[in-house]
Amino acid sequence: MSKAQHTRDRIIEQAAKLFNQQGFAGVSMSALMAATGLKKGGLYNHFASKDELAIAAFNYSVQLASQRQFAAMRCQRRADDRLRAMVQTFVDNFDEISAWGGCPLMNTAIDSDDAHPQLREHARLAMNRWRELIEHIAQKGVERREFASQTDPRMVATIVISVLEGALALARLDGDRLPMQQAQTHLDSYINSLVWAPDTS
Amino acid sequence: MSKAQHTRDRIIEQAAKLFNQQGFAGVSMSALMAATGLKKGGLYNHFASKDELAIAAFNYSVQLASQRQFAAMRCQRRADDRLRAMVQTFVDNFDEISAWGGCPLMNTAIDSDDAHPQLREHARLAMNRWRELIEHIAQKGVERREFASQTDPRMVATIVISVLEGALALARLDGDRLPMQQAQTHLDSYINSLVWAPDTS
Repeated sequence: MSKAQHTRDRIIEQAAKLFNQQGFAGVSMSALMAATGLKKGGLYNHFASKDELAIAAFNYSVQLASQRQFAAMRCQRRADDRLRAMVQTFVDNFDEISAWGGCPLMNTAIDSDDAHPQLREHARLAMNRWRELIEHIAQKGVERREFASQTDPRMVATIVISVLEGALALARLDGDRLPMQQAQTHLDSYINSLVWAPDTS
Repeated sequence: MSKAQHTRDRIIEQAAKLFNQQGFAGVSMSALMAATGLKKGGLYNHFASKDELAIAAFNYSVQLASQRQFAAMRCQRRADDRLRAMVQTFVDNFDEISAWGGCPLMNTAIDSDDAHPQLREHARLAMNRWRELIEHIAQKGVERREFASQTDPRMVATIVISVLEGALALARLDGDRLPMQQAQTHLDSYINSLVWAPDTS
């Protein structure tokens, strides 16, 4: 890795938390200079604009979060176990996600929706990747008869993501992890309800 | 109402949508001047600071949203019907909420959590009022034996709010109301599962 590439990566890492906590408009050039220890010219050597740095920082934050998810699910085979592992990882990482300023997907979705079309598009693509991962797991579950045939994979993705992200926002607002535990209880029971039960009547 | 009070209210109305769409840091003094048609001095005649105006604007946005909720629930008696009416109203108002820039509670919770402690506190109080309203409905439902005795009112509030707010963020990001409809289907079935069923075995 070249020295320039190394410096670029270091800037992204140091800016990512700041953007996630303060939102795009809330991050000033002087805050970026303080976080990275670089002067304005040094930052512009590596990024053409604040927008370019914000997008790289967002993608870095999302990558960190999705690596955790993948690592947890890799050990599981059955669709219900894989979804439960995803939920468990999200809930277990509450302190880590909180220290980072919340979920980068949700933060950027809400921060950028009316304010920054480019960032919004990156948030949309990242959210779609998460949704498609859950859809894929649920679809495989149906094909392998682990999930009931009437399972709607798109619906499963909407419910899992909504409950996790909504509960995270509640938990962070109250500084209390209870909503996360309640989300997990609810989703575990929802995932159980998807499991194919042979008709024994 | 005095002329000063009237002007103050007009400023709040015109600033509320702007703050909800752009977030606190994203709203500049010049944008506030453009939205209200007032000069800086005119704005400072009515509000001591941008913070004071942002808090008044947030409370106005929340009041608009909760009036809709109350109007819909007032016609219902049973706890399950009241919760269903709340969900229905939220889903039916997707276009209106979207044009306003999303749910002011969730926007302000996420916008302010690491950036603006005062606004965060107002978001927390408003979210608590919504949560307590749902808890109250669920508690009454248990007392009247409309809901099963093991119903946990706090859990009901977490799930209803998380699913609605999470799905709203997904729907807005994709510009597609499908997640809202899926949220309603899921919550209707969840609310049904709370209803007290006499043991006929």
